[in-house]
Amino acid sequence: MRAALECFPCYYSQILKTARMMSLTEEQTREAIARFSGLLPGLPDSATPAGIGRELYLILSELSGDPDPYRGIKAHCTRLALDMYPKMKERVRSSRDPLKEALRIAVAGNFIDFGTSEQVNLKAGLEEVLDQEFFIDHYEELRDHLDKVDEVLMLGDNAGETVFDRVLIEELGKPVRYVVREAPMINDAVREDAVMAGIDRVAEVISSGCVAPGTIRRFCSAEFWQTMQDAQLIISKGQGNFEGLSDESLPIFFLLKAKCVAVAREIGVPMGSLLLLSPRRKSCTADSG
Amino acid sequence: MRAALECFPCYYSQILKTARMMSLTEEQTREAIARFSGLLPGLPDSATPAGIGRELYLILSELSGDPDPYRGIKAHCTRLALDMYPKMKERVRSSRDPLKEALRIAVAGNFIDFGTSEQVNLKAGLEEVLDQEFFIDHYEELRDHLDKVDEVLMLGDNAGETVFDRVLIEELGKPVRYVVREAPMINDAVREDAVMAGIDRVAEVISSGCVAPGTIRRFCSAEFWQTMQDAQLIISKGQGNFEGLSDESLPIFFLLKAKCVAVAREIGVPMGSLLLLSPRRKSCTADSG
Repeated sequence: MRAALECFPCYYSQILKTARMMSLTEEQTREAIARFSGLLPGLPDSATPAGIGRELYLILSELSGDPDPYRGIKAHCTRLALDMYPKMKERVRSSRDPLKEALRIAVAGNFIDFGTSEQVNLKAGLEEVLDQEFFIDHYEELRDHLDKVDEVLMLGDNAGETVFDRVLIEELGKPVRYVVREAPMINDAVREDAVMAGIDRVAEVISSGCVAPGTIRRFCSAEFWQTMQDAQLIISKGQGNFEGLSDESLPIFFLLKAKCVAVAREIGVPMGSLLLLSPRRKSCTADSG
Repeated sequence: MRAALECFPCYYSQILKTARMMSLTEEQTREAIARFSGLLPGLPDSATPAGIGRELYLILSELSGDPDPYRGIKAHCTRLALDMYPKMKERVRSSRDPLKEALRIAVAGNFIDFGTSEQVNLKAGLEEVLDQEFFIDHYEELRDHLDKVDEVLMLGDNAGETVFDRVLIEELGKPVRYVVREAPMINDAVREDAVMAGIDRVAEVISSGCVAPGTIRRFCSAEFWQTMQDAQLIISKGQGNFEGLSDESLPIFFLLKAKCVAVAREIGVPMGSLLLLSPRRKSCTADSG
């Protein structure tokens, strides 16, 4: 999906917020604003929000001199999520439809995102999301598709959310390859975050080769893109992956919360909607089925 | 004052809002974003919010092909304000301190600003501001200074607000030169707006030569800047004039509402504060006297 007009004020708010998080000085933050602004006129018309967010973060990261300034936050979120893991497993066990419940838990975990939300009160926020119905729910289609495939490729999103993804992986009943970013990008999961969440015990952890807050074809490794093309079923978590992949013709089920007006409008749903979108119906306006 | 970090997200929000107001297409708005972004790296470090706002508006105005897209809005605001003029005059007449009441009315009029507020419900908003106390009030000093001068230079701000400025002019008891922008800039008052408000009947209307949402020395005509330097007493209305003039050493009393976090922090007051600042104490943090 192409970056929306509303993305631009948001980028600058993100620069300020992320710069504070990285403890950049005011002058460094001004330098980041100037460098990022200088890039914008040269971007291709089709640039995705995640692709532009990548540029923003790389500038901030370079100025901070720390290749992984969110390391502590990511570990903190993962620990909090691990504390909740037994309760999540219990929810799945006691559910009439464990796979459905695991999908709900996995999308609930998607609310952990320092890129779009100022602060996260993990446990309270999670309970709220767990009580929310999917606005678009192509669950039947996912279940049918899952029955027919030999394995699943799952695209991870944020660290911490990884623990909730693990709950889903454990219910899929198929071998899973779990995809992480190649290198730190905001609070997105890299290999060590997936390992800390215990994903490596239930899936093969692989890298997309991509250093962006999403999965964007031109930044992925050739090897990984071949894996995408060969995949029988892909489950993509979160907005960033959706932004990069929404125009690709691949068997992708998107599992996400529409956290901002640009993505909500692109899909045609209210902001805050929980979504499970099938590959055939990525974009729906009046389907809450 | 120098543009604050918070100004940058705000510029992009203003581009979107103003582009909608001007009925620009999405592609024109993207063009405006690209052109404006391209300018930012080249701006001097000392650029003021009003100076950067000027660039933004000139780009949008050029793309719209209309040199005065706020013409209708300005006339509408002026008519609404003229409807309220008799009531304002009555407030002044029945006040124990008519000059003080006229200052309050003039600063209340400053809340008319499409640059910083999404929508204006003129009458309701005005009543609210009229009930608000000044957070910093150097009234005694202004009154004493006024006694000693032969004339006053008053720097206008938005159209509509001009009518409230007229109420103040009528209480100053000295000849007034009232300063407007040289050419349309958002909803700022130009000569025709001042004339529509009846200012020409109570003051001499002159141009600053400046085409910016404020009074910025380097954009003013040499003739006008000489007038500034010769002035015995200047009353400056609104944020835009403050932003451009806060670092000048001139006998300026600033009469404004601190509408945004950047200006409020620069002055050291809560957002939304009504302010009458003397030239000697432009910046105060703990003075509500």
